[in-house]
Amino acid sequence: MNALILFAHGSRDPEWAAPFRAIQRDVAQKNPGVAVELAFLETMEPSLPAAAERLIAEGATRLTVAPLFMAQGAHLKKDLAGMLSTLKERNPRIEVAVLPALGEAGPVLQAIGEWLAGHD
Amino acid sequence: MNALILFAHGSRDPEWAAPFRAIQRDVAQKNPGVAVELAFLETMEPSLPAAAERLIAEGATRLTVAPLFMAQGAHLKKDLAGMLSTLKERNPRIEVAVLPALGEAGPVLQAIGEWLAGHD
Repeated sequence: MNALILFAHGSRDPEWAAPFRAIQRDVAQKNPGVAVELAFLETMEPSLPAAAERLIAEGATRLTVAPLFMAQGAHLKKDLAGMLSTLKERNPRIEVAVLPALGEAGPVLQAIGEWLAGHD
Repeated sequence: MNALILFAHGSRDPEWAAPFRAIQRDVAQKNPGVAVELAFLETMEPSLPAAAERLIAEGATRLTVAPLFMAQGAHLKKDLAGMLSTLKERNPRIEVAVLPALGEAGPVLQAIGEWLAGHD
C-alpha cells in the first residue's frame, strides 16, 4: 500500500489547519488507492513519526512525504530530515520518498504568480 | 502608484528565500505598472514596515499586502495585523489592502492538489 503524508508546520490556532485539511480531502479524492494523512511538526497531532508508524502498521510499504511548506529551511533540512532518518532506520524495508517544498513545484509557483498578478 | 508587498516569514537560511524571489520576479513581470516588493516577518530584510515606508516615500498611494503563508495563524492574525494597524495610523491617506493566505486562494489550492495527486 502507498501512503502520502502531508507534512505541515502546526499552530495553536485550530483554524490554521483548514487549508491543509482541504488539500488532504482533495488529494485523497483524486487518489482513492492511496492513504493520504496529515501530520504536523509541532503543536498539532499527529506528529510525522506517529502518522508514519501507524500507516506502516496498517500495511503501508511505500511512504511519500509532501512538505506543505513554501520553502526549505531548518524545519525541512534538519527537523524533517532527522525524523525520516530515524524512520528509515526503524523500518528498513519501507520505501520513503520526499517531495520538494511547494515553492519548488513549478505548477504551484505558476498558480501563485497568476493569482497574485490579478491582485495589485 | 500601486505597490504589492509579498510578505514571507524569513529564515536564517539564505536559500530559503529563493521561491519567494521567483514569485516576486514572476508577478513583477506580469504587472509592469506595479512596484512588487518582498518583505519578511523576521531574520531577513526588509521588514514589512520598512518596505512599506520606502514605497510610500517613493509615491505609492495604494499598498496591497500578499501574505506568502499557507494559512492564517498568529503571524498573520497578530503580527501582520499589528504592523498594518501602525502603518495605517502613520499614513492615513494610504489605502492598504490585505490578501488571504495562499491556502485560502482557490486556484492555488487547486494547483497544490493537482500537483500532489500526481505524486503518491
